[in-house]
Amino acid sequence: MGFWKSLFIGSESASPVQANSGDAVLAEVTGQDGSGRIVFSTDREIDLYELEELCSAVGWARRPVRKVQKAIQHSFVVVTMWEEKGARRRLVGFSRATSDHAFNATIWDVVVHPDFQGQGLGKALMKQLIKKLRSEDISNVTLFADPQVVEFYRGLGFMPDPEGIKGMFWYPD
Amino acid sequence: MGFWKSLFIGSESASPVQANSGDAVLAEVTGQDGSGRIVFSTDREIDLYELEELCSAVGWARRPVRKVQKAIQHSFVVVTMWEEKGARRRLVGFSRATSDHAFNATIWDVVVHPDFQGQGLGKALMKQLIKKLRSEDISNVTLFADPQVVEFYRGLGFMPDPEGIKGMFWYPD
Repeated sequence: MGFWKSLFIGSESASPVQANSGDAVLAEVTGQDGSGRIVFSTDREIDLYELEELCSAVGWARRPVRKVQKAIQHSFVVVTMWEEKGARRRLVGFSRATSDHAFNATIWDVVVHPDFQGQGLGKALMKQLIKKLRSEDISNVTLFADPQVVEFYRGLGFMPDPEGIKGMFWYPD
Repeated sequence: MGFWKSLFIGSESASPVQANSGDAVLAEVTGQDGSGRIVFSTDREIDLYELEELCSAVGWARRPVRKVQKAIQHSFVVVTMWEEKGARRRLVGFSRATSDHAFNATIWDVVVHPDFQGQGLGKALMKQLIKKLRSEDISNVTLFADPQVVEFYRGLGFMPDPEGIKGMFWYPD
């Protein structure tokens, strides 16, 4: 925290630098000991053990790798965030959305590594995801937010319970 | 309303009568002027104009048929409800769910024709959908409920805002 100095390239004005296929450099993060950069990607070629490590770092319960793989495969959009330092690349953020490819999308599994939190990178990750969903003509972007992140999502333009609409979860009788 | 006398076949105890592929007869509905029956189906071969008529009957805004078709195609599960009278078949209910095929599902577009409301058929339709999702090993079944149907879904075991989790919708800044 405070170790990194973030220099964002405006995602609206600047044309993103294309890295690999599915990649877009949208933010530069400079460390005190040199420089690294943050890269966003929609590529689904993710080391699932690296993803598990990221999820463990924020305290999420372990999930079967086979099911995580299936969930990624059947998500409509996946946006990952990587720290690049020279030839090294580290997964520092993840997000995905399910969708009917026409009207609705629902965002799941938004995670930013604790070392990279508090710098606007979660916001940048979400903006990438929303931008991608909008480019696919999805008009209804939804999510279920834990109490401690409701304000974070509100800051991004998400409204809780609009017009009294309630998010509900099913539990067996 | 009150015109129909419903005779449900318990979905747990009785083995459903198989009709066409993807069909299961789970309820018998008898009319005063003779008899019809209600059939549930997971078949996606739906006349989209008949679906539009059903949605209009409950006051929903018209949606582009091409987009509705795409949404159905990319839904994980579709459950429809039909009234059968002799050789005639009429679409009287619809529901669908998006999913990552692994952990989460979200239910959309639940509709029962006004002539068939108030008889437990909406509940029967939802039970079919939930049963199908559970059979696919989905553990987290979610939806966004308009205020007037929150109690309906609560009666089916759905909880609003469990542990403070908020349903949120994105709107542009």
